[in-house]
Amino acid sequence: MRAVDLIQKKRDGLELSTEEIQWLISGYTDGSVPDYQMSALAMAIYFKGMSVRETRDLTMSMVASGQQIDLSAIDGIKTDKHSTGGVGDKVTLILAPLVASFGVPVAKMSGRGLGHTGGTIDKLESIKGYQIERSQEEFIKQVQDIGVSVIGQSNNLVKADKLLYALRDVTATVDIIPLIASSVMSKKIAAGADSILLDVTVGDGAFMKTLEEAETLSQTMVDLGKEVGRQTVAVITDMSQPVGRAIGNRLEVLEALEIMQGKGRVDTTNFICELAQIMLRLAGVDKSLDDVEDHLVNGKALEKFEAMVLAQGGDLKDLYRPSSSPYITPVYAQTDGYITELPALEFGLFAMKLGAGRAVKTDPLDYESGIVFDKKVGDAVKTGDLIAQIYSNEKISQNRLTEFQKNVKIGGVQIKPKEIIKIIS
Amino acid sequence: MRAVDLIQKKRDGLELSTEEIQWLISGYTDGSVPDYQMSALAMAIYFKGMSVRETRDLTMSMVASGQQIDLSAIDGIKTDKHSTGGVGDKVTLILAPLVASFGVPVAKMSGRGLGHTGGTIDKLESIKGYQIERSQEEFIKQVQDIGVSVIGQSNNLVKADKLLYALRDVTATVDIIPLIASSVMSKKIAAGADSILLDVTVGDGAFMKTLEEAETLSQTMVDLGKEVGRQTVAVITDMSQPVGRAIGNRLEVLEALEIMQGKGRVDTTNFICELAQIMLRLAGVDKSLDDVEDHLVNGKALEKFEAMVLAQGGDLKDLYRPSSSPYITPVYAQTDGYITELPALEFGLFAMKLGAGRAVKTDPLDYESGIVFDKKVGDAVKTGDLIAQIYSNEKISQNRLTEFQKNVKIGGVQIKPKEIIKIIS
Repeated sequence: MRAVDLIQKKRDGLELSTEEIQWLISGYTDGSVPDYQMSALAMAIYFKGMSVRETRDLTMSMVASGQQIDLSAIDGIKTDKHSTGGVGDKVTLILAPLVASFGVPVAKMSGRGLGHTGGTIDKLESIKGYQIERSQEEFIKQVQDIGVSVIGQSNNLVKADKLLYALRDVTATVDIIPLIASSVMSKKIAAGADSILLDVTVGDGAFMKTLEEAETLSQTMVDLGKEVGRQTVAVITDMSQPVGRAIGNRLEVLEALEIMQGKGRVDTTNFICELAQIMLRLAGVDKSLDDVEDHLVNGKALEKFEAMVLAQGGDLKDLYRPSSSPYITPVYAQTDGYITELPALEFGLFAMKLGAGRAVKTDPLDYESGIVFDKKVGDAVKTGDLIAQIYSNEKISQNRLTEFQKNVKIGGVQIKPKEIIKIIS
Repeated sequence: MRAVDLIQKKRDGLELSTEEIQWLISGYTDGSVPDYQMSALAMAIYFKGMSVRETRDLTMSMVASGQQIDLSAIDGIKTDKHSTGGVGDKVTLILAPLVASFGVPVAKMSGRGLGHTGGTIDKLESIKGYQIERSQEEFIKQVQDIGVSVIGQSNNLVKADKLLYALRDVTATVDIIPLIASSVMSKKIAAGADSILLDVTVGDGAFMKTLEEAETLSQTMVDLGKEVGRQTVAVITDMSQPVGRAIGNRLEVLEALEIMQGKGRVDTTNFICELAQIMLRLAGVDKSLDDVEDHLVNGKALEKFEAMVLAQGGDLKDLYRPSSSPYITPVYAQTDGYITELPALEFGLFAMKLGAGRAVKTDPLDYESGIVFDKKVGDAVKTGDLIAQIYSNEKISQNRLTEFQKNVKIGGVQIKPKEIIKIIS
């Protein structure tokens, strides 16, 4: 087999066989197929696509390129969850212990944030002492013992994805549905859970900008999961405004604690309960929304969360400590009306510039900084009402404040935002 | 500027600016733009094409990536000629001295053969002592002294093309008109001639398989040449059967000598005279076809050829020596009729396997081997007539002979082949 012939085949719109895809991915992983052939192939895939069968073969070849976690030592149907990324997305922090509080084991590997999007691992690391690196044995033992663990992605998982992801990033081949789907699903499949909830965000703060794209990606991933025997559901969720109130690592942990104490915003709380209900159903556990919400109000979810933090070396006293940001700048409404827009991308970038996120992978984080919104889209405001507080390490200039205010859109028509747009199963 | 943004721009069907193309090519030449970005860009160009302006910018950026030959020390309008490659294509061997015999200086750099196609430089090297490497000073001095020189391509010319050509070869991005055009024309422009004759071959033995492709490529190159102030004409020529009688290095030199003695096939002789007439006209010299042919019959072209061989160290006694191949296998007609097909690709590959060509760049050549046809398409044959002789270093097996015979198509209808299909200026 020669890579050039396979590139040409794809370029000419033909399907690659299972053997050809396996050969390409194993060659790419061992270095015998160089980057310059893989990037030409990726660009050909941009224009010619991949069939369902090819996408499945690509995914499984990628799974085979690295370690595969065996969770069979854990009893029950193991569940996992993945989000395609967003702003203020602290869902995993609450969802994982909430689901685990019903006796469904949650063994989850999470990622870091980049650009305007945050990452669960960064949020957990804002808790003093929290260890995100665990051996496979420690990981499994913790899920056996307390039912939940959230750790960082193992470096040995899906080696081909690490190479391909870095390559796609610099060759304008990121936004290709079969490549995104196989990247996400290969990691989920290798991570070993039996059922997978996919949170596919859509909107200006998300990777998928249109509902159509989100639907195609969701269906592709759901089909992929099912084909390889994993119960998979995708939930398309709104990322036109940030999730919940807070953006920023420490601030999001604090909001998660609020929600797990039954003191969160009603909309955010309901949203997370609906996701938990779907995840539980995937594991064969049918619960009403009220049952699920009970575990937030009665502290069962929080108990699991604290147990997880403790088990992973975190300091429970530090957990509840407020942000230590020296500057807290209030932002007030300039007019009466309803909040009509809080563009997630703009506020994600604003928070990133405060130090809450990274422009490039190697940037250090300021865990304490970020934004807490007092009002969200649909809320009524009067001139002078507190809209948000900016937590920062430096004084916020008038220019920055004006920039922030400009992005808070207030109008005469009340919009009712919908967190869950569509469920694809 | 970031390469990834320029790849995306092209991928999305937008035009790259002059500065962007210059930046890409200079970066690729100095290594700051890596192969994996260039191959993704090439694949995007495959799907999205390049405008005339982009193709010109690409070409001139490539010219700027290496040395440019200054032929101004040579009086008169310097002419050059390029063929897109073929089987049995010994045209340059005759055309260069023929044009020079009219006082028009020919300063030409030629290439080597690969696959089923031959290369002028290989043919010249079949002459004992012939030196294809000359300093720029020696090259210019020889054209000043005797009016003609054919040497190998300088390694310092169009550095970007060397890199890009090798990359395209392994990434299925060879057959892209703007990239072929800029590759050819950048080398011609850097080589310094004032006027350029492009022989664009079409047919199964050529790189362009259809007339439409050949026309597009021809027009692109002619426009390019004119835009940068070089008189350029493209002649689309037939490569459905081999050119002339011989395939193979030494055998083609011998056929060239025959033609320059006025003893060649009439069709091949006429074809070369027509090309010479166009090349002369490009240099402002108007001659009738009879005038041109006279220089073949009266030995003026041969005189120039011998002078060139001598000036470049060649041995004139060796020049006229027949092939030393130990085996000469005749092939006879199996039926009566007319030759209807002699597929150039098949016979090019047949000769390559005899050692007359290279499957890969590093293969050694057997200069003596090849094929000499006694009959060409359109010739009448009777059963038992000699069709061709195979010159080889080993005995030709019955299988190989049958394979050869199978490719000689004989039918009832006489076809009149046409060497020059179209002239584009």
